[in-house]
Amino acid sequence: MESIIRITFPDGSVREYNKGITSYEVARSISPGLAADVFAATVNGELWDLARPVQGDATLRLHKWDDPEAKHAFWHSSAHLMAEALESLWPGTKFGIGPAVENGFYYDVDPGEGKVITDSDLPLIEDKMKELAARNSPIIRTEVSKKEAMELFTAKGDEYKTELISELEDGTITLYRQGNFTDLCRGPHLPNTSSIKAIKVLSLAGAYWRGDEKRKMMTRIYGITFPKQKLLDEYMVMIEEARKRDHRRIGKDLELFAFSPRVGMGLPLWLPKGADMKQRLIDFMTKVLKERGYTMVSTPHIGNVDLYKTSGHFEKYGADSFRPITTPQEGEVFMLKPMNCPHHCEIFNATPHSYRELPVRMAEFGTVYRYEQSGELHGLTRVRSFTQDDAHHFCRPDQLKEEFKSIIDLVQYIFKIAGFSEFTAQISLRDPNNHEKYIGSDENWEKAEQAIIEAAGEKNLATTIAIGEAAFYGPKLDFMVRDAIGRKWQLGTIQVDYNLPERFGLEYTGSDNQKHQPVMIHRAIFGSMERFVAVLIENTAGRFPVWLTPDQAVILPISEKFNEYAKTVLNILNNSDIRTLIDDRNEKIGKKIRDNELKRIPYLLVIGEKEVGAGTVSVRKQGEGDRGVMKPEEFITLVKGDINREIGN
Amino acid sequence: MESIIRITFPDGSVREYNKGITSYEVARSISPGLAADVFAATVNGELWDLARPVQGDATLRLHKWDDPEAKHAFWHSSAHLMAEALESLWPGTKFGIGPAVENGFYYDVDPGEGKVITDSDLPLIEDKMKELAARNSPIIRTEVSKKEAMELFTAKGDEYKTELISELEDGTITLYRQGNFTDLCRGPHLPNTSSIKAIKVLSLAGAYWRGDEKRKMMTRIYGITFPKQKLLDEYMVMIEEARKRDHRRIGKDLELFAFSPRVGMGLPLWLPKGADMKQRLIDFMTKVLKERGYTMVSTPHIGNVDLYKTSGHFEKYGADSFRPITTPQEGEVFMLKPMNCPHHCEIFNATPHSYRELPVRMAEFGTVYRYEQSGELHGLTRVRSFTQDDAHHFCRPDQLKEEFKSIIDLVQYIFKIAGFSEFTAQISLRDPNNHEKYIGSDENWEKAEQAIIEAAGEKNLATTIAIGEAAFYGPKLDFMVRDAIGRKWQLGTIQVDYNLPERFGLEYTGSDNQKHQPVMIHRAIFGSMERFVAVLIENTAGRFPVWLTPDQAVILPISEKFNEYAKTVLNILNNSDIRTLIDDRNEKIGKKIRDNELKRIPYLLVIGEKEVGAGTVSVRKQGEGDRGVMKPEEFITLVKGDINREIGN
Repeated sequence: MESIIRITFPDGSVREYNKGITSYEVARSISPGLAADVFAATVNGELWDLARPVQGDATLRLHKWDDPEAKHAFWHSSAHLMAEALESLWPGTKFGIGPAVENGFYYDVDPGEGKVITDSDLPLIEDKMKELAARNSPIIRTEVSKKEAMELFTAKGDEYKTELISELEDGTITLYRQGNFTDLCRGPHLPNTSSIKAIKVLSLAGAYWRGDEKRKMMTRIYGITFPKQKLLDEYMVMIEEARKRDHRRIGKDLELFAFSPRVGMGLPLWLPKGADMKQRLIDFMTKVLKERGYTMVSTPHIGNVDLYKTSGHFEKYGADSFRPITTPQEGEVFMLKPMNCPHHCEIFNATPHSYRELPVRMAEFGTVYRYEQSGELHGLTRVRSFTQDDAHHFCRPDQLKEEFKSIIDLVQYIFKIAGFSEFTAQISLRDPNNHEKYIGSDENWEKAEQAIIEAAGEKNLATTIAIGEAAFYGPKLDFMVRDAIGRKWQLGTIQVDYNLPERFGLEYTGSDNQKHQPVMIHRAIFGSMERFVAVLIENTAGRFPVWLTPDQAVILPISEKFNEYAKTVLNILNNSDIRTLIDDRNEKIGKKIRDNELKRIPYLLVIGEKEVGAGTVSVRKQGEGDRGVMKPEEFITLVKGDINREIGN
Repeated sequence: MESIIRITFPDGSVREYNKGITSYEVARSISPGLAADVFAATVNGELWDLARPVQGDATLRLHKWDDPEAKHAFWHSSAHLMAEALESLWPGTKFGIGPAVENGFYYDVDPGEGKVITDSDLPLIEDKMKELAARNSPIIRTEVSKKEAMELFTAKGDEYKTELISELEDGTITLYRQGNFTDLCRGPHLPNTSSIKAIKVLSLAGAYWRGDEKRKMMTRIYGITFPKQKLLDEYMVMIEEARKRDHRRIGKDLELFAFSPRVGMGLPLWLPKGADMKQRLIDFMTKVLKERGYTMVSTPHIGNVDLYKTSGHFEKYGADSFRPITTPQEGEVFMLKPMNCPHHCEIFNATPHSYRELPVRMAEFGTVYRYEQSGELHGLTRVRSFTQDDAHHFCRPDQLKEEFKSIIDLVQYIFKIAGFSEFTAQISLRDPNNHEKYIGSDENWEKAEQAIIEAAGEKNLATTIAIGEAAFYGPKLDFMVRDAIGRKWQLGTIQVDYNLPERFGLEYTGSDNQKHQPVMIHRAIFGSMERFVAVLIENTAGRFPVWLTPDQAVILPISEKFNEYAKTVLNILNNSDIRTLIDDRNEKIGKKIRDNELKRIPYLLVIGEKEVGAGTVSVRKQGEGDRGVMKPEEFITLVKGDINREIGN
């Protein structure tokens, strides 16, 4: 009877199995179909190989493809498969690290003196991977001593692996082997390679060993795999769709922004159309904020290091980011601001506050600076200077829930306006077993966590709860939107902070005439203007809402004869604040229409003999076609109607 | 006959005098009244003592009080008089330097070991000065050798003067003596002390000898004098008026901005009301700019040093300002931007340009950083980060005149809106004898100078011309406004630049299909938002125009019973975008009126029984009183009328 163990499933049901059964066998005991669909298991809260024997009573969660845990194991095993292929194609290849990433996996390899892997080798690697996968080799886990591991990889001559082993503690080392290939690895992995049905080796890049530019430049090979060809096909379509929506390309085509190496990488230059659009978003947001009781402030982009020593940011951003700025005055040191909050605390401190004025909702489109490695920079989504749509609520503890509700409401409103109908929210709470990690009293934490949970409930917000994911200074609520092609983007965040009020000695006079410390809430909705514009471009493929788009209409005279009338129409539209252009080039109307369709201007107004005669314009909607002939005034009504539907004014 | 000399006056008339006559005697020969009114003379282009003999034919300009040259001599002599008083009161006092300044004079003195001059000594000094002035001592100029000068001040034990003398060249040294006091001085001075009729010793400050903090801290004593008591009285009234208008005080009272030592000196924090007002100015200006063909851009506040090496700004601002910013990447260095122009050049370079698109008028409210010594900082007028209302016109050489006209027109429009009806303009041209000092071809300079002069003429702009005051990169036009109490403030500037287009390789395709270099015009109208808000505060004493002021109306319920109705009125006004507050404190109406008058809110709306009954408000204009009882809708019309008069919409 001791050889029987009890396995508890997520739904609470329990089954009995022989001791030493694997998760894979458990799955098969439920149904062979399920066994084919699972790729990893969580056993007693730990992520395990499906093939690892379970030796006692346990809780078990089986991970199907949609779980990130499944993908992680799948892609991690695929990285090993690629390494096996590389070793088979080019014996003597040395291996660095080969992790699973968000979409697929990579392996950093050193092909050895004189050998270079090029793009033309990628199909070769892919074919070899397919061949090896089809062999259906089991992936076998073994625990070894540090000495054994060291001997193995020393014999193999792989100095990268031996360097990694030398840093490990004895007793924690595992190897995974499939076919002829053995790798140092923590796992978990698939039971065997046969489920890797669809394989694509994607691209090459250079990467310094351990990210250190003084060390060897290795070859990073990216790939992705799927359990079904259909999933790979869909993925490749999505990649192609994403390529078309790449905000860097569209931003250049539509002349929204540019980068200049002379100004510096990661420092966006907003061209007129982009600057206007960004400002339009800021203006819209400012109007909404004021209606919701926010006050706007404006603070400098630098601050004395004392400010950031007070806030604690100096420790975090002092040396690894843009370095401090000295002046001709000895001992005086400034910093580019990494955060707006310390400035806002000082503004709060600049005037006295009574409990009656709270909450103070202080907002700023405040630009901050963070040094990102040049390799990490990416268009407008990873930049070195960005403008947060930042706000801080200074409130009484009893106002936390109402403030959260008001912010959730604002987030819901703004996401709707911006066209993100699908989004998820995560509440990050304290680790209940580790209270000393956090600043602030237990009572305040409980109040704050309760306030967030209740606020989310009352606003009908679907949330997941992540225990132990809170910041040390307070619990938080993060929003993630889903775009038109299914990608997820982290946007808004709401965070409670007990730390800065303490550090800055913030206070208000209570109804008891005593001084009290307010609670601070940090919140951003767009996150940053840069990131938000990027996400908006990728979501809309540059077909922005009419209220927001740089140019709302373009007038296309069929020939030069009609340029005069075109100007008359232009004036009428501009006077009604319809942002309008004329394309008066001496080109055929077909070409004018094609060219202007590419510019994603929502409305094309064709004018010729008939329109001039009747005082009308012939309206085409971009990407949709004819909307009929109408008077300019009717067209204005049409556009205003669009805008009214979009933003309600 | 050789003892007769010919004196030519500014009007071209010539008189003959005996050789050796003084300018004072010439003045008296014209009229004794004139002689009493002049304080210095320009003889053959050099500023002279009135008492200095003229030994040959000469041109002569006599300086009356309104000339800066007269004030300079008057205050310089007054500094000597103060020194004489100090020496008489405290024998052994040592003297540093004692110049005339913009308003009055000062002397830096070392009262000697153990002696301290305090505020309570100031009347004593003033009385002694009056006593000495009344003695009518002549002020006598003597030329001495360096050796003689050195002996004199060594004997006196004044190590400051001997240090100064040691740096002078022999043969250039003059002394001035009145009564028992002799000073090392270049002059010029009054003939005697008797014209110093009105004397005020103003204040004390500390000042390092030669501005070097490692050297002796001296006592700086400020004073001002006038030839008539009435002028002093008027000056003291003006000073008091200026004190009341001090933008630092009003900015604090109205909660417009604040400074925090933790954030850093000279780095303004815009509080909600100030931030809104600044933004309202920016929004208004942006609207005007767009109507006038400008495009707005937005650029980061930092740039790679390479950018500023290309522009030449690194040389100028590299080490003496905020120091460069290094990063974890070796060799990578950034700088806070001291100017927006290099960024704008890179934006111009980001897209190709045809002659047909020029002029490109690129505007940005761009923040720049300049390190000012902490002693130089002053409220919002001298800060370390400021937001310029900056624009650059990139145009063809043949468009320069039209561009200048358009900018002059804009300046005239904006100054009018801002309430500065009086302003002067100065055209700064090349030194015609020193062409090698300037970059750009003679032909381009002549064109540009001609364009500015003609543009100013055609816009009926009264200008003075300053030869040799052009920047090395081009001629310019500067504007100076006069405020409500007669003070002058430098605001707008328009500058031609041939340098940056060259350095950045800017080009456009001409009608000849060849590449050409555009001319660049830098222009600012406000100068900076910080400075402009400061000048606006000082000009209006915080009584801003209705369109711009933070709060346009405040509702004052006579008692709490009327708070409900107050809220109804508030909603009506807010819905019509009238920025309105309620003062619902439980205070007497008299006190509410007095308190709110101090806040400079233009309209006070009193409501009581009668108003509630009739659905009206009782309107008071701030500082002016009753405007009658009206419906809220009529009040809205009244306010909209104000705004329409102010900014025409």
